[in-house]
Amino acid sequence: MITAKGLEGIVVDDSAICKIDGNAGRLIYRGYDIHDLAASLSFEEVAYLLWNGDLPNRQQLKEFENRLVSQRIIPDSLKSAIRNLRSSSNVLDVLRTAISVLGAEMPLKRPDLDDAIAISAKIPTIIAAFDRIRNGQDPIEPRRDLNHAANYLYMLTGRAADPAKVAALNKYMILLADHGMNSSTFTARVVASTWSDAYSAVVAAICALKGPLHGGAPAPVLKMLQDIGTPERAEEWIRNELKSDRRLMGFGHRVYRTTDPRAQILKEIAETSAPKNLIELAKTVEETGIRILQEYRPQRKLYANVEFYSAVVMHSAGLSDDLFTATFAASRSIGWTANILEQVANNRLIRPEINYTGPLNRKVVPINAR
Amino acid sequence: MITAKGLEGIVVDDSAICKIDGNAGRLIYRGYDIHDLAASLSFEEVAYLLWNGDLPNRQQLKEFENRLVSQRIIPDSLKSAIRNLRSSSNVLDVLRTAISVLGAEMPLKRPDLDDAIAISAKIPTIIAAFDRIRNGQDPIEPRRDLNHAANYLYMLTGRAADPAKVAALNKYMILLADHGMNSSTFTARVVASTWSDAYSAVVAAICALKGPLHGGAPAPVLKMLQDIGTPERAEEWIRNELKSDRRLMGFGHRVYRTTDPRAQILKEIAETSAPKNLIELAKTVEETGIRILQEYRPQRKLYANVEFYSAVVMHSAGLSDDLFTATFAASRSIGWTANILEQVANNRLIRPEINYTGPLNRKVVPINAR
Repeated sequence: MITAKGLEGIVVDDSAICKIDGNAGRLIYRGYDIHDLAASLSFEEVAYLLWNGDLPNRQQLKEFENRLVSQRIIPDSLKSAIRNLRSSSNVLDVLRTAISVLGAEMPLKRPDLDDAIAISAKIPTIIAAFDRIRNGQDPIEPRRDLNHAANYLYMLTGRAADPAKVAALNKYMILLADHGMNSSTFTARVVASTWSDAYSAVVAAICALKGPLHGGAPAPVLKMLQDIGTPERAEEWIRNELKSDRRLMGFGHRVYRTTDPRAQILKEIAETSAPKNLIELAKTVEETGIRILQEYRPQRKLYANVEFYSAVVMHSAGLSDDLFTATFAASRSIGWTANILEQVANNRLIRPEINYTGPLNRKVVPINAR
Repeated sequence: MITAKGLEGIVVDDSAICKIDGNAGRLIYRGYDIHDLAASLSFEEVAYLLWNGDLPNRQQLKEFENRLVSQRIIPDSLKSAIRNLRSSSNVLDVLRTAISVLGAEMPLKRPDLDDAIAISAKIPTIIAAFDRIRNGQDPIEPRRDLNHAANYLYMLTGRAADPAKVAALNKYMILLADHGMNSSTFTARVVASTWSDAYSAVVAAICALKGPLHGGAPAPVLKMLQDIGTPERAEEWIRNELKSDRRLMGFGHRVYRTTDPRAQILKEIAETSAPKNLIELAKTVEETGIRILQEYRPQRKLYANVEFYSAVVMHSAGLSDDLFTATFAASRSIGWTANILEQVANNRLIRPEINYTGPLNRKVVPINAR
């Protein structure tokens, strides 16, 4: 028996999907460095890669894009279910419910690529439909001629988005598509290991992503930047947070001991896509945060994490801050489903143990004697 | 780094809730042996025990029962959501969706006892409402004067159930209320460890319980018994299954190396609550199954597991076989929420690692060159 609270340092399985080298600051999908993937590929190509193991050729990509596009539409019954939720609902709660409703129309079967495509294609449609409905507008049907990122932005506003925004969102979605055994992907694998279905496994992953320790940080980062307001206020604001024992959002990661490569690429994206005052503010807050955190925790160097510049990039792409975590889900659904497919291809029920530390040999006494 | 596929032998944390001694065949909740709890207590008392750590006195129990009773009612908005699902939906999918809908009306907050009570009190109401609706009947409001098990059976039929059936279901629900780090409870703890909310953690647990390797076995056990039909056909039927490489349902468990104490108690319950021909058939199938499995796997002694007599007891209590896993959920929700509360009381994000075995250093080539 080995005890490992939080399962740190425990390897649950082999995987050919994603490699994180936390010391070197490298992230690899199926053998390709994340820098190369984000530099030149579409989200669709990377989804194909994560699901199939290799990049598609032109014919394969065309067929694959058609399959994704044809799965974007959501049924009217689902739109009704979304309309019946309160407009003040957390978007992750809406997404969780919507995938659960879709799953209730499916038979219990072994997860397959059709499930992965259907779920991932529909997530942006669900998010956009709810965003429209809560704002008193009708949902917009997906457009077949737009790619995944462009169509998502289009369904939110009804207008084709600026190509620079589409490009930024496309890169963001590639960068966030998978990341080893993060809690939501691990949750998906645990559920898949019981031979439950793909919809259940994705619903469970959304449940985990909702947690502020996992998917919930980008919106508070934006709020922090807005609170700070101008670069010269950064130092005082950050010192005040740390003095008050509050956690500085957007810094540090369980796995990376150097710069998170995704943070670095997102920073480059933000340099070209974000308004000048926002990126200058973000850079000052990043530098100041790192410097002051070093004072507080000299034994452990903390860096800006993926959420830090995610917030800047998503805001600049035109997404409201309460769509940030849902957009993270739209990206990570690729990794969730790739991991679900890998889990069921060589399955073993995931069932750890727990160490009982409570009392023993208690005797039940009748209620009148208690 | 330690590799443990399926996390077998890995201890994720300390816990004062539930102890399983797989070698001795003992199960303990909060220091009390499961035999003693099932013999004389109500499901409500055991829920109180699992959540609070001690058995209630008379005054505490009365207050607690009132809190549970007042939380049984489900809002009309939830009834509408259930009506909008297909009547052919898997009951676990309905339950998963319903808890998700309830959660969408709650703020993101740290799980507490109010959440545990609200969720556990409503699960039987949700199951019964769907069962009525799919049969073209109106849902029945809960009755304040009935205990948890009795009210569940009442809401299904509109008639107060026979006391022997209530007693059998009450014991079943106590026996299934918790069981260490089974996959659904573990899933709930993983989700809670991200600081997600109690509803999300329970939704995720339902996703895992749906899997046939976890919660899905009792209905196939009943089908097996019905297929076999009479005791003298057991031997031929079982040999035929094993010859055809099919898994015999209701035998074997990852943790127990002797009789599962729950199976033993459920067998005693079935002796008094089940029709004579069904219990005689079940006992013959159990004995024959153990004997023949011993021939096939002499190195590992397999026993009837908890699902085997669960099927007989639930069927005899009047539950249709596609309510078995949902009724398991209604019982296990106590253990899920007890574990969620324990997880957040001393939290550490649960995030294991995975060993990358895929290719390295691949170069992206332009699509025309692929």
